[in-house]
Amino acid sequence: MLIVADENIPLLDSFFGDMGDIRRVPGRTMTAEQVRDADILLVRSVTQVGPRLLEGSRVRFVGTATIGTDHIDLDWLEQQGIAFSAAPGCNANSVVEYVLSVVLLHAERKGLDDWSSLSVGVVGVGSVGGKVARKLERLGFDVHLCDPPRAEDPDDEDAEGFESLADVLKCDVVTLHTPLTRDQAHATYHMIGAEELSLLRSPQLLISAGRGAVVDCQSLSDRLDQPDAPAVALDVWEPEPAVDPALMDKVWLATPHIAGYSLEGKVHGTEMVYQALSRYLGLPVRKKSGQFLPEPALNKVSFTSSADEADALRISLLSCYDPRRDDARMRVAIRGDEAERSKAFDRLRRDYPVRRECSSLKVQLKGTSKSLQDSFRAIGFKIKI
Amino acid sequence: MLIVADENIPLLDSFFGDMGDIRRVPGRTMTAEQVRDADILLVRSVTQVGPRLLEGSRVRFVGTATIGTDHIDLDWLEQQGIAFSAAPGCNANSVVEYVLSVVLLHAERKGLDDWSSLSVGVVGVGSVGGKVARKLERLGFDVHLCDPPRAEDPDDEDAEGFESLADVLKCDVVTLHTPLTRDQAHATYHMIGAEELSLLRSPQLLISAGRGAVVDCQSLSDRLDQPDAPAVALDVWEPEPAVDPALMDKVWLATPHIAGYSLEGKVHGTEMVYQALSRYLGLPVRKKSGQFLPEPALNKVSFTSSADEADALRISLLSCYDPRRDDARMRVAIRGDEAERSKAFDRLRRDYPVRRECSSLKVQLKGTSKSLQDSFRAIGFKIKI
Ligand SMILES: NC(=O)c1ccc[n+]([C@@H]2O[C@H](COP(=O)([O-])OP(=O)(O)OC[C@H]3O[C@@H](n4cnc5c(N)ncnc54)[C@H](O)[C@@H]3O)[C@@H](O)[C@H]2O)c1
Ligand SMILES: NC(=O)c1ccc[n+]([C@@H]2O[C@H](COP(=O)([O-])OP(=O)(O)OC[C@H]3O[C@@H](n4cnc5c(N)ncnc54)[C@H](O)[C@@H]3O)[C@@H](O)[C@H]2O)c1
Repeated sequence: MLIVADENIPLLDSFFGDMGDIRRVPGRTMTAEQVRDADILLVRSVTQVGPRLLEGSRVRFVGTATIGTDHIDLDWLEQQGIAFSAAPGCNANSVVEYVLSVVLLHAERKGLDDWSSLSVGVVGVGSVGGKVARKLERLGFDVHLCDPPRAEDPDDEDAEGFESLADVLKCDVVTLHTPLTRDQAHATYHMIGAEELSLLRSPQLLISAGRGAVVDCQSLSDRLDQPDAPAVALDVWEPEPAVDPALMDKVWLATPHIAGYSLEGKVHGTEMVYQALSRYLGLPVRKKSGQFLPEPALNKVSFTSSADEADALRISLLSCYDPRRDDARMRVAIRGDEAERSKAFDRLRRDYPVRRECSSLKVQLKGTSKSLQDSFRAIGFKIKI
Repeated sequence: MLIVADENIPLLDSFFGDMGDIRRVPGRTMTAEQVRDADILLVRSVTQVGPRLLEGSRVRFVGTATIGTDHIDLDWLEQQGIAFSAAPGCNANSVVEYVLSVVLLHAERKGLDDWSSLSVGVVGVGSVGGKVARKLERLGFDVHLCDPPRAEDPDDEDAEGFESLADVLKCDVVTLHTPLTRDQAHATYHMIGAEELSLLRSPQLLISAGRGAVVDCQSLSDRLDQPDAPAVALDVWEPEPAVDPALMDKVWLATPHIAGYSLEGKVHGTEMVYQALSRYLGLPVRKKSGQFLPEPALNKVSFTSSADEADALRISLLSCYDPRRDDARMRVAIRGDEAERSKAFDRLRRDYPVRRECSSLKVQLKGTSKSLQDSFRAIGFKIKI
């Protein structure tokens, strides 16, 4: 069996090496020629998959190690009877850790001793937003949810207690995790426009980590000129990749669409495709990404009984991920004309440094309080007591 | 033997408990009555020591657990034959760690991978400045020194290679560590005025951690309105404690005169007075502050062979001390009229949280590079290989 795969999919050998021969090709320039004799095709978001690439090939299964499927002609694959699988939610936990770090830094800036005294409104309660909400709730935050499509879905059994966007915008922190949709009920394009932005005021915080154009970024830029503007953390932009430098100057935390870029998230994408392919081939699912993840650069921190909960959380969380570093890198890199800014944005994403999730860090908590230990457990650290 | 001591001097019992009886009194309100029958008087900077307090007492030795002696009538003590000792340099290492953290954050903001590629000008090369310079040199920085009084002192054997203020102002980072002097050669009052500030330009960084009025803060405030202004980190202010909120808004890092406030620095002050008193009494110096320091909240971090030097240093240094937290606390606290701002400034200093130096942190560096290990050693971490 021949597997043709984007050379940038991590851990190809570890997961697929014993299933067949692997031919690695560059994802961006993949040709029909390279794919013709393949049985299995594994891609990332940079390869367009449709008749032009696959017509006349032997490919029976296409997997993409990404959450998005915009690059896949799903209808055509279905017509052809080619099996398909994506990796929905593979990097959701990475985005959760981005949100937690941003909220922690916001609480620090506002002089709050207890971050969980903040109320948080989650807009879009899918793979990412749902996980954000669950972790925050376990940490004791007052969490409010907004997801009209789910609220109206009669088949959604967990669709309870959803609130309106206007209500959720009253929270201390509002974090956006919807896809970008147009021309349908509850379209999210420019969902946060001038009117919504006028309701958000300092010291509130708006986090946008779904898709850039969910926020009307021209209105946002205008709003940020006013003295009572909220603090804003943008991971996604309108437009991308040619970020508006004037807007960047005004937001508190600017990052180049990397909230989901942990190594664990990327490897989890490969793992989910491996699981789907195994099921397709009727093979047992024996491997787990945990087996293959490299040792992290920082592998342990030890606190003593004198540790304060807020301090210990801050040190541990920011040692794993501090968004201010990505912010600093972005502000230095984004300059010049549109073409230069676009290139810089893409480069920041392509050359993104290895980032590990909290699950990679052992935290020694002997003698610390039960509440402190519960918080560390909720975030997902490997705790030792 | 009776020892009367300011109740806020840390570790009084541990150091002096076996030398005599200790009477603890509040430093600010200490009276002649309370001191009359004492043999030894131990104070901090809040007690005025002179004839009004000591006339008619039995006191033979006065010790202050601080670097400053402004609160002591030295001439009168000498006339009376009362021995005296201070604790010069006791908190120098705390200031060094403040400077290192500030420089590290500055390098991060400027997108530098190697912080030691920055040149640093040290103005005032005494206890603090000398230690700043030595550590930076060991870390590979290009360090330039300015100290005219030392340069002109024929008895100063290490006075070599000093440069002019104008030359040192060309460095990427300029850090001020002079005392405040007026009416004498090389007076430091407003030494950094409009002219000097016009020479400092973005992306340079100015750090002021000696005395506030060494910088003409009105001129600084004006300078910071210009687009090519340098980044500024102020730990000391003019005036203090009624910090000018407009200036605070314009500086990059604002901290309330706490660069020297590590627990180690405070305890070292007690230790130095204990050493001086032991010598005065002809007793052996057996105790060391290391014996008495409490276990730190964070006591160990472990890196693996995949650790990158810059990342590992950043995590370790900022886990011990991150000046952005003091900056956040200060910006939240300093508000209202002059009286309110002054009270807030003093409160920030009085209620300063326990801060530990890098020497309190064990760092496991098995398998890391020699250069990484050397850097950790230079900073003063307890490294394990
Ligand atoms: N910044 C990053 O690095 C990063 C990482 C992962 C995902 N994302 C993006 O985040 C978004 C969410 O991802 P996901 O995996 O959770 O998707 P998902 O499909 O699992 O969830 C999206 C949720 O949004 C809800 N929604 C749709 N329209 C809405 C509206 N008008 N108001 C409120 N809710 C609405 C949907 O009902 C759904 O529950 C996607 O756009 C994804 O591309 C970004
Ligand atoms: N921010 C803090 O928390 C903190 C902590 C400790 C010390 N300090 C302050 O830092 C200053 C330095 O403390 P130190 O213990 O190093 O004092 P020090 O007396 O040991 O050293 C001061 C040095 O400054 C030099 N100097 C004097 N005039 C100068 C000039 N015009 N130009 C250049 N150099 C000049 C002196 O020659 C001397 O070498 C003091 O004012 C002290 O109060 C602040």
